[in-house]
Amino acid sequence: MVLEHAEAMHAKDLTCKALGIALEVAEPGRAVLTMQLGEDMVNSHGIGHGGYVFLLADSAFAYACNSYGPVTVAQSAQVAFLQPVRPGDLLAAEAVERSRQGRSGLYDVTVTRRDDGAVVAEFRGHSVTLSGNPFAG
Amino acid sequence: MVLEHAEAMHAKDLTCKALGIALEVAEPGRAVLTMQLGEDMVNSHGIGHGGYVFLLADSAFAYACNSYGPVTVAQSAQVAFLQPVRPGDLLAAEAVERSRQGRSGLYDVTVTRRDDGAVVAEFRGHSVTLSGNPFAG
Amino acid sequence: MVLEHAEAMHAKDLTCKALGIALEVAEPGRAVLTMQLGEDMVNSHGIGHGGYVFLLADSAFAYACNSYGPVTVAQSAQVAFLQPVRPGDLLAAEAVERSRQGRSGLYDVTVTRRDDGAVVAEFRGHSVTLSGNPFAG
Amino acid sequence: MVLEHAEAMHAKDLTCKALGIALEVAEPGRAVLTMQLGEDMVNSHGIGHGGYVFLLADSAFAYACNSYGPVTVAQSAQVAFLQPVRPGDLLAAEAVERSRQGRSGLYDVTVTRRDDGAVVAEFRGHSVTLSGNPFAG
Repeated sequence: MVLEHAEAMHAKDLTCKALGIALEVAEPGRAVLTMQLGEDMVNSHGIGHGGYVFLLADSAFAYACNSYGPVTVAQSAQVAFLQPVRPGDLLAAEAVERSRQGRSGLYDVTVTRRDDGAVVAEFRGHSVTLSGNPFAG
Repeated sequence: MVLEHAEAMHAKDLTCKALGIALEVAEPGRAVLTMQLGEDMVNSHGIGHGGYVFLLADSAFAYACNSYGPVTVAQSAQVAFLQPVRPGDLLAAEAVERSRQGRSGLYDVTVTRRDDGAVVAEFRGHSVTLSGNPFAG
Repeated sequence: MVLEHAEAMHAKDLTCKALGIALEVAEPGRAVLTMQLGEDMVNSHGIGHGGYVFLLADSAFAYACNSYGPVTVAQSAQVAFLQPVRPGDLLAAEAVERSRQGRSGLYDVTVTRRDDGAVVAEFRGHSVTLSGNPFAG
Repeated sequence: MVLEHAEAMHAKDLTCKALGIALEVAEPGRAVLTMQLGEDMVNSHGIGHGGYVFLLADSAFAYACNSYGPVTVAQSAQVAFLQPVRPGDLLAAEAVERSRQGRSGLYDVTVTRRDDGAVVAEFRGHSVTLSGNPFAG
């Protein structure tokens, strides 16, 4: 299931477009995004750059915390890198809401490699809602 | 000052090459890297994607924690996003070592916008050293 | 269920004894501990001190990550404070394992107020195993 | 230097009173607090409980972020445990402001053992200001 306004967000999301990040699921409080790690997404050790793993998790977080409508942004985040990734790996990030009170939200994102199901990173993000619903009326 | 082996790391760093990330300083326990935010590095709200801000900070962290030679990788990291960034912004990430004991290190990275000096993000990374010195003769 | 060696840990745990922290559950990768917030566990604003909320979560984390036997300690942790607590509140911290690979573990701890079930804090801890099994014959 | 309203905060701080936490410095954006680790502040491994190290750091953070007057509370925090501590150790936590914008603040706290100057923990806290100045006329 992909919410209509999440679809609209994705259509305007130039980072997703440039990196080939697909939106698989976007429902209230939850989102799944996927990305294939490109040949040039490696660091000097030749392994997948943690920055791209974070970016994918952060994107899933954004779709989950914006799923209710009002513009919501990341305030802070933590990530644990559990397994190295390599070019060609298809990564899936699933964000789920853990808490939401007033304008503050807390989301957990698990990044797995689709091929073998290995968990490659665990991310937790704190969001803050800025404003009213831009999708209303 | 740029250490010779950091220069060698940078030459092999395909992410830095693809994103135009320059290495300004790499000395024991400290590194400064810069990146200009591209037109397609925005999210659906039209503001700079936090994932790229993290990626730049994470790269500076990598050059600082690998400055001693042995292969060292990120184990976990936290980031606080303090200011939105926009395409065209020239960002500088400065990583400094806060602690290093045995195989574990702790580094703080401050990301600023060069234009006005605004601090846009504060990052803290935990590193772990994997092995002996690959640069040793 | 309380594992025998967890019971033995608890009997030697002077912090638990001093603060009246009870061990309700200790099974492989999971633990539940409870504590009633005392009258003098408040800060200058008159609300429960976040330090005690963290301490309870950190203790649950310790019983979960030591549940397999080998001595395991906290390397780092994050906490989000979601609701204020008050003297008299009975708090329960449930720690569950999210990841365990080699000597590294990642545990999530949710602290709730028993009375109304409100989630007052979310904690995530990184553990490292130091040594062999001190409980082995 | 200890600001007058910080002195007043400390006089009402029952946790500080119960644990013997002294306020050495409280000035705009900075605070130093000390505590001697008691005999019963250990965990089941017989080493100082990380919860008390966090509590001391969190207290220093509170005095630093409340130094401007308006009621300010901890929203989230991270801690890295770098060295074990033992009963009898005199610990000092120094909190310094890293960023403050609108109602949000970011503070770094370093916990050292006075005896040998060893850094035992590094803490980072995010604060949020709730209200106007309770100390104003």
